[in-house]
Amino acid sequence: MKPIIRLPAIDRRVLLSSLAMLPVLSVSLRSNSAMAQAQSDPLPSWNDGATKASILDFVARVTTQDGPYFVPVDQRIATFDNDGTLWIEQPMYIQLAFALDRVKAMAPMHPEWKTKQPFAAVLDNDLKALAASGEKGLVEIIAVTHADMTTAEFEKIVTDWLATARDRRFKRPYTELVYQPMLELLAYLRASGFKTFIVSGGGIEFMRPWTERIYGIPPEQVVGSSIKTRFEIKDGAPTLFRLPDVNFIDDKAGKPIGINSHIGRRPIAAFGNSDGDLEMLQWATLGASGARFGLIVHHTDAEREYAYDRDSHFGKLDVALDAAAVNKWAVVDMKKDWKRIFAFD
Amino acid sequence: MKPIIRLPAIDRRVLLSSLAMLPVLSVSLRSNSAMAQAQSDPLPSWNDGATKASILDFVARVTTQDGPYFVPVDQRIATFDNDGTLWIEQPMYIQLAFALDRVKAMAPMHPEWKTKQPFAAVLDNDLKALAASGEKGLVEIIAVTHADMTTAEFEKIVTDWLATARDRRFKRPYTELVYQPMLELLAYLRASGFKTFIVSGGGIEFMRPWTERIYGIPPEQVVGSSIKTRFEIKDGAPTLFRLPDVNFIDDKAGKPIGINSHIGRRPIAAFGNSDGDLEMLQWATLGASGARFGLIVHHTDAEREYAYDRDSHFGKLDVALDAAAVNKWAVVDMKKDWKRIFAFD
Repeated sequence: MKPIIRLPAIDRRVLLSSLAMLPVLSVSLRSNSAMAQAQSDPLPSWNDGATKASILDFVARVTTQDGPYFVPVDQRIATFDNDGTLWIEQPMYIQLAFALDRVKAMAPMHPEWKTKQPFAAVLDNDLKALAASGEKGLVEIIAVTHADMTTAEFEKIVTDWLATARDRRFKRPYTELVYQPMLELLAYLRASGFKTFIVSGGGIEFMRPWTERIYGIPPEQVVGSSIKTRFEIKDGAPTLFRLPDVNFIDDKAGKPIGINSHIGRRPIAAFGNSDGDLEMLQWATLGASGARFGLIVHHTDAEREYAYDRDSHFGKLDVALDAAAVNKWAVVDMKKDWKRIFAFD
Repeated sequence: MKPIIRLPAIDRRVLLSSLAMLPVLSVSLRSNSAMAQAQSDPLPSWNDGATKASILDFVARVTTQDGPYFVPVDQRIATFDNDGTLWIEQPMYIQLAFALDRVKAMAPMHPEWKTKQPFAAVLDNDLKALAASGEKGLVEIIAVTHADMTTAEFEKIVTDWLATARDRRFKRPYTELVYQPMLELLAYLRASGFKTFIVSGGGIEFMRPWTERIYGIPPEQVVGSSIKTRFEIKDGAPTLFRLPDVNFIDDKAGKPIGINSHIGRRPIAAFGNSDGDLEMLQWATLGASGARFGLIVHHTDAEREYAYDRDSHFGKLDVALDAAAVNKWAVVDMKKDWKRIFAFD
């Protein structure tokens, strides 16, 4: 298991985004089981300590009817990053693994790719050559794998891929590589009257088909990056055709913009793990009255998952880690704060 | 009361869009009262007839558990146009009335407007000159009245305006000029497990502050046109600054795109009143299996409201009226189908 791609600046901007997939797998430990546990301890996979206490304290404050920090139910908006916050993002974003697999699956119809970069690099598993193709190469890969089809077709492709693809290290479907403590947190917040949203740099239509089943978050509560679409009536049936043009990058300063566009209210709690989440946490917590909560998941457990932060190519956590100290955002030390990482641990 | 503006092509594209306002007024007859009535007749302001029957029949079919047309609750998505479908749009879009009033309110800070078109025309109530300024003039008016401020500032401006502005014919706040039969329909659908969304060519932030109070539709279920925003930290507080650039026009073929972006599922029912709603109704009803429902509100009552369709400058209903016949969409004849138009009738 080595870091797969070394691009000088792997940034969400080059991973554009997308649309579709479908209810997928799999073992999973969904809201129901988490809520049953919540009768006693709503966060059983969290070790006792300052982080867990800060979550419980925040929720108690905003839900205490006559308390000074009470927040009406309709304003209990919580936003969650996805990659690295709810599921794994190493050794590369799962959506990128999807794109590389798609290149291989599509290769028989594109014999010219054998000698054409960046595709040849993908087909040869030549990661150095792929990295050498840079941002331009990555954009080309995303364009051919994510566009030039209808939203329904893309949804099916993603769904089929997720049903069979396995993470190489954990030998599991990706939808099992979601963090059990975060599933409990999502369920706990919803049981406390919160509406939970995903606000991810990943493709909106790459997430929507499975977020309801895996996270309990319906499609209309998923915010993400997107490409442009065109409405067409084909053989009497309306379709949306996916175009190879970026529509919106839901990362960094794009996250508050995406939140405003899709939700129309400021969250009172936000959860992230990288510098891409900095502005979302600022938008949720700064310059606003009342109780606010920000949390950063810090990947510190190389044994059970991965350990990375300031120098990582995916999910770089540097400025936001410093900001957490200044702004009193909670920081999860995964190794210390989480009893288990995955449901199968 | 005369038609105020005569532009050769008043199109949603020129009315760009926007953001904010706030919970506003007023008498109103909200979900609660409508739902109390629903015990007996869920649609008491609708006259018996084919239109009302088609609504009741559709809802019965999709909610009958073991029936052939049953639709699970999470897929019961209904989308509503706003202008001309839920509230009035004559003699001009209410958002345009807002923009013209704003020009007058801002004029003291812009002495140069006295001699500069299109502003002079607005200040002189010279509608001919305003019309002569064409689309370019209208874009200028929208830009100065809707941009160059934070989203919070815009919300306050819209809120304050709605609290005092009165429609000239009805001498009422605009938020009272909502159609009582449609309020009952919204409440009935929600009571039947539907999630109701607004999908309007109007500005998303012009609607969000009052749609929950007036329609029972929260901000995150409002889709509309928008301008671009920029995230900034000002004096330690994060803001979104409204820029004079169009981001998205949620009209015509933009409506299915907006629906896909914000909702991520196809509606099974859609409600509109103009050619701007054609593609939304197609997206909701055509080429899909199961029960689907499309409805067009046809303004036929010059006495109680307005009568207009194929030649109207606002809310032109021409192609979509023909399409309704072909596609078996219900067409509300307001004069015949609605017992009353407004709550105060």
